[in-house]
Amino acid sequence: MRLFDACLSRVQPLSNLYSDLAQKRLDSQIRPARSLGMLEEMVAKLAAIQEKERPSIERKCVYVFAGDHGITEENVSCYPREVTPQMVYSFLAGKATINVLARAARAGVKVIDMGVDHDFPRWDDLIIKKVGYGTANFMRGPAMSEEACRRAMETGIALAMEAKREGIELAATGDMGIGNTTPSSAVIAAITGKSPREVTGRGTGIDDEGLRRKIEVIEKALEVNQSLLTDPVRVLQAVGGYEHAGIAGFVLGCAAEKIPVIVDGLVSSAGALVALELHPHIKEYVLWGHRSFERGHDAVITRYQGRAILDLDMRLGEGSGACLSMQILDTAVKIYNEVATFEEARVATRKILEEKNV
Amino acid sequence: MRLFDACLSRVQPLSNLYSDLAQKRLDSQIRPARSLGMLEEMVAKLAAIQEKERPSIERKCVYVFAGDHGITEENVSCYPREVTPQMVYSFLAGKATINVLARAARAGVKVIDMGVDHDFPRWDDLIIKKVGYGTANFMRGPAMSEEACRRAMETGIALAMEAKREGIELAATGDMGIGNTTPSSAVIAAITGKSPREVTGRGTGIDDEGLRRKIEVIEKALEVNQSLLTDPVRVLQAVGGYEHAGIAGFVLGCAAEKIPVIVDGLVSSAGALVALELHPHIKEYVLWGHRSFERGHDAVITRYQGRAILDLDMRLGEGSGACLSMQILDTAVKIYNEVATFEEARVATRKILEEKNV
Repeated sequence: MRLFDACLSRVQPLSNLYSDLAQKRLDSQIRPARSLGMLEEMVAKLAAIQEKERPSIERKCVYVFAGDHGITEENVSCYPREVTPQMVYSFLAGKATINVLARAARAGVKVIDMGVDHDFPRWDDLIIKKVGYGTANFMRGPAMSEEACRRAMETGIALAMEAKREGIELAATGDMGIGNTTPSSAVIAAITGKSPREVTGRGTGIDDEGLRRKIEVIEKALEVNQSLLTDPVRVLQAVGGYEHAGIAGFVLGCAAEKIPVIVDGLVSSAGALVALELHPHIKEYVLWGHRSFERGHDAVITRYQGRAILDLDMRLGEGSGACLSMQILDTAVKIYNEVATFEEARVATRKILEEKNV
Repeated sequence: MRLFDACLSRVQPLSNLYSDLAQKRLDSQIRPARSLGMLEEMVAKLAAIQEKERPSIERKCVYVFAGDHGITEENVSCYPREVTPQMVYSFLAGKATINVLARAARAGVKVIDMGVDHDFPRWDDLIIKKVGYGTANFMRGPAMSEEACRRAMETGIALAMEAKREGIELAATGDMGIGNTTPSSAVIAAITGKSPREVTGRGTGIDDEGLRRKIEVIEKALEVNQSLLTDPVRVLQAVGGYEHAGIAGFVLGCAAEKIPVIVDGLVSSAGALVALELHPHIKEYVLWGHRSFERGHDAVITRYQGRAILDLDMRLGEGSGACLSMQILDTAVKIYNEVATFEEARVATRKILEEKNV
């Protein structure tokens, strides 16, 4: 895992230098000090990550990691797994929710086939990095091999490096994969030590009976794979998914490359959790786009003393909450760049009065 | 108060007809049912208010009501009252936070001089409706006369009627007035019955000693004006401000004209509170843009079982939180209009596959 180790060794703690400079400028603008709350904190954080007094997030992209899951055999979702490739096609056609959100945020969308059970034709913005045709059913053993897990994580790392080369200034994670809230809750339970009941929700909208079954499936899976649940990467291999591994690698890579990365809801956060556990400073590069309605998401955010930008009861995935929050970040940066200082405002007022001969 | 009574009598309860149609379309789009949470609820609400299956919020405007306050004699703010006209000039010059937010939301900004202690030259987008040169110090008696309060409210109503004629599809309230969190908290305490301590915060950023004084001022003001605190409009007259009265009238007018109106933070909510108390259905036309960091705001939102769109510890006023939330609403409407239905997605996928000869 040479790429992985090299990447991990490059993660650095943020310096206060640029965040202090940014806050100083914010404090000089015409409003009571700190009256924009989290908007100011976010600008200061972007400045620190980008190591610039004036952060820029013009170039934005959401990375949607897609995969299928053997665990769907256990009837844990409302939808059949054929929906995963169908949704990928909708992303490629620009017709899904994430496409609308990305256009609104002026962000690109890249879809990564991490392991969908379907062969896609070549297509712009579809990056085929297939590790397999869906994971194995982790009720009967690990979801993937050590080698597959490594490859999937390295794909995520490589994408972050590529993003840096392409000049991406703000990244977001997204996911697509029928059944993928089940591995998400399993990964979160295994890493945080919370019970499956505490961190498992209804996903696409299963009923009470379905939820009971889903929790049982996770409980059994954690038992079956117990010997592997010794460290975060092993947990990922045992009860995660290819898209979770891709997201874990991508978040790690963004931290190494100093790209601010917005993590979306439950699925993205389960992937990010693996990365966050690997290094104490990775969390400094992460923004939490929204607080999902899906049970279990809070357990990840609070573990890192995070606070989500939005809290709108969304539970779609695709990167939707992360992408929506980009508009808030964009506006925070605009405020930072465009609002007058007290001195500039005096000059502007004088100009108005002169023009009116007052 | 003929305009006032006529307006009140025109407020109608929302029908479910258009919100049900909107929800039906949302349910047909390619994602799990109701997975966009509040975004879907907001679209359905806009449809109900506008009485259209496809709501449109292309034409947006934020109305910033400005006034001065006699209570500033009691040293309740960090800033001298000269800052009120200075900030109005900054709004006119397009240099303040609200201007940046409005540009980001593609919304207009109108500033209404409800009673600033300054004579402004004529200027585009400054609407001079001066009721006085600041209110009286309400520690010594009512802040304004019955006649002044009525005029200020009718100004707000007239602005809503004008907005309708101009085709404004989404309105937001904002405020500017040094010292105006003090009347806001006084109005909220008097109407909700909560103690001044529970609903009074630091405003522009006063220290512990200042906060103690501010609470005392409000306690005394409520005592001095006790005989007037019999109904919401009297409360407004006794311990409110001209901008609060303008906002109260504007919210009432928006409900009568069926214009969805986003209420901003503490000051706007204190004004809106007066309107909301007058008629049980006005709340159906109101959206709460954000949950302010300023103490007292929650008391208003929860009184009407509301939920704010954003919660970012903002406490600026100017309409800033309301204006920022416009982008979320805009995006919700875009999703509603642009995301494919399951049937449309099938067609799009077929097209991709044919193009690729798969």
